[in-house]
Amino acid sequence: MNGTSAEPFAARRGRIAAWLKERGIAAAVFEDREGRRDPTVRYLTGQPGDSLLLVTAEGRGILVSWDVNMAQALARADEILAYGDFERKPVRAVLGVLAREGIRPGAQVELPSTLAYPEYIRYAEEGGDFDFLCREDGADEFARGLRAVKDSAETEVYRRASAITDELIDALEAGVRNGSLSSEVDAALFLERESRTRGCEGMGFETLAAGPARSFGIHAFPPCTSGAFGTGGLSILDFGVRLEGYTTDVTMTFVRGKPSSRQERMISLVEEAYREAAAMLRPGIPSIQVARRVDELFADQGFKMPHALGHGIGLEAHEAPALRNRDDNTWVLAPGHVVTLEPGLYDPEAGGVRLENDFLIGPGGAEALTRSRIVRL
Amino acid sequence: MNGTSAEPFAARRGRIAAWLKERGIAAAVFEDREGRRDPTVRYLTGQPGDSLLLVTAEGRGILVSWDVNMAQALARADEILAYGDFERKPVRAVLGVLAREGIRPGAQVELPSTLAYPEYIRYAEEGGDFDFLCREDGADEFARGLRAVKDSAETEVYRRASAITDELIDALEAGVRNGSLSSEVDAALFLERESRTRGCEGMGFETLAAGPARSFGIHAFPPCTSGAFGTGGLSILDFGVRLEGYTTDVTMTFVRGKPSSRQERMISLVEEAYREAAAMLRPGIPSIQVARRVDELFADQGFKMPHALGHGIGLEAHEAPALRNRDDNTWVLAPGHVVTLEPGLYDPEAGGVRLENDFLIGPGGAEALTRSRIVRL
Repeated sequence: MNGTSAEPFAARRGRIAAWLKERGIAAAVFEDREGRRDPTVRYLTGQPGDSLLLVTAEGRGILVSWDVNMAQALARADEILAYGDFERKPVRAVLGVLAREGIRPGAQVELPSTLAYPEYIRYAEEGGDFDFLCREDGADEFARGLRAVKDSAETEVYRRASAITDELIDALEAGVRNGSLSSEVDAALFLERESRTRGCEGMGFETLAAGPARSFGIHAFPPCTSGAFGTGGLSILDFGVRLEGYTTDVTMTFVRGKPSSRQERMISLVEEAYREAAAMLRPGIPSIQVARRVDELFADQGFKMPHALGHGIGLEAHEAPALRNRDDNTWVLAPGHVVTLEPGLYDPEAGGVRLENDFLIGPGGAEALTRSRIVRL
Repeated sequence: MNGTSAEPFAARRGRIAAWLKERGIAAAVFEDREGRRDPTVRYLTGQPGDSLLLVTAEGRGILVSWDVNMAQALARADEILAYGDFERKPVRAVLGVLAREGIRPGAQVELPSTLAYPEYIRYAEEGGDFDFLCREDGADEFARGLRAVKDSAETEVYRRASAITDELIDALEAGVRNGSLSSEVDAALFLERESRTRGCEGMGFETLAAGPARSFGIHAFPPCTSGAFGTGGLSILDFGVRLEGYTTDVTMTFVRGKPSSRQERMISLVEEAYREAAAMLRPGIPSIQVARRVDELFADQGFKMPHALGHGIGLEAHEAPALRNRDDNTWVLAPGHVVTLEPGLYDPEAGGVRLENDFLIGPGGAEALTRSRIVRL
């Protein structure tokens, strides 16, 4: 990050500042800490974690970091302070930075919407006469909306991350075919190593490798074991690489031997649902329509998918826009959205089938970024 | 978990129920979900994640799980329901279970203390006339206090996990010495594989492998790269294995070549601080005294440690009791506490040194569970 241009971060903070100014809010607080990660801090500064960020309506970005050495090396902000200077207490840090910036009691200050209720009460009690806002449609929701629409720097990262993902998909298929990858841990660690060799930070989330004995679970637990993978039956591998903070997210299914008739039906239904959904992706379509179509297709055949059809990806493995068949999903797909489709069906006896790829919504349609598949061995 | 006895989980829920009953609270809600993990759900049911748990004052435990197939296989509860039956909405799920249990509006219901302020408002609005509590010293804090004191089943897991950790420490030292492990990713993936081969669920947290170029950071970012490890200078390796949910947490430092005089001073100071702190561990001592002693020792020599001295470990890598030199740390060490000591010093030029091991506080003193060390190559 050291050699990275400060420009995209400053531009993004500028959009937050304009949003604040328009609403008469003096500053917004973003916080990324253990147990409550918010990659918006990274989106706005490049700092990958463990920091509190204040963005003021005047466009200043002040980062208070748990590890100031790391922040000096990685982050782009107008000022970088040490959390230790505020007794490592978030309320102290926020009040301290507000004072340094000359923001006076009485001003509106937006707090993270994820702030716990008892912590909000502490801000209210210790925060003098500041008017603290804490709401679901506040500044962090606005930032999530910005993050959903990838800018050109981000799209460029996704092209490189997708190419690496595709290389890994091919290499993995080859390894499972030739028997060199025959356990869940073999498959998962192969990806860990190969992704880092290719310059990735690592995986975007813990790789889920579920051999035939465990593929009935949506998210097998533990994510991988030393058990068999790619052997007779259905095996699921769900992974993403993280490049410069951004994760891909794909799922392969491996089918070894002759599937039972129920397995065969599940496989062809998932493939059909995937094709139908992919054909529907375009700017302007409400994502609930795509998700509903797949749920209906499965229901017509007596099946039920126990999870959402897909989701946005970015600095988080699950972010906006949603692709979910639920009334509160009001997302309309738009150019710059990067989303996954991951239809899947699971059966305690037959095992699971899931197929997942990433798509970039463009001005005229959708482009598949990755080419994962159901592999018959 | 399938073959696991339901007894410890029922006994733990019984202590929560008694706490509730004593206070006239009808039920407590615990929630483990993406972005807000709470392993208390696992502590009370064995279910490793993505679930909402209601414990009633009558001693019933009702689990609402995102993946009901997985929960049926892994969890021990009086009832297991599907989150999908409540439109995947937490408030609906809580109200639904309260109704099923015959708990009537007007009753007090304790919500997680980590509940976001806007979500609390939604409970208050949609929750009819229930009296929802949400406070820092509520049921989840009580549960964290229970979790801090390991019972005999947990201590037994720690003995096995520590033995595996020690095997890995030895194997890692051998690999770095003989040059077969010479990059950060080599070291980290070696541990990933070896831990799973030994029956662990995986690592307790992402392994931090920082070669000489990056050891100046407390938590190097990214946690590991394909860069050199164990080469000339100071390399830090911070890892833990996760066995049946419980994580160990140790840090090794590797010193290759002749250290500079500043590096030499940092190494001997860290070793001295470690010895002094370890000698102070005993039941009845306020943990702030131990942490303050180390901070003073460093300050006398013109150094400053930018993090806490240690912390409890268990189902989380950082849990109670704290070992921190801060006024709000009122923990007194007690039999059953499992804690780490991790004195460390960092310098942007010289790199970092940290030494960390795990200790079990017993009735008469403390026992070192692991034997990590600073290795001179």
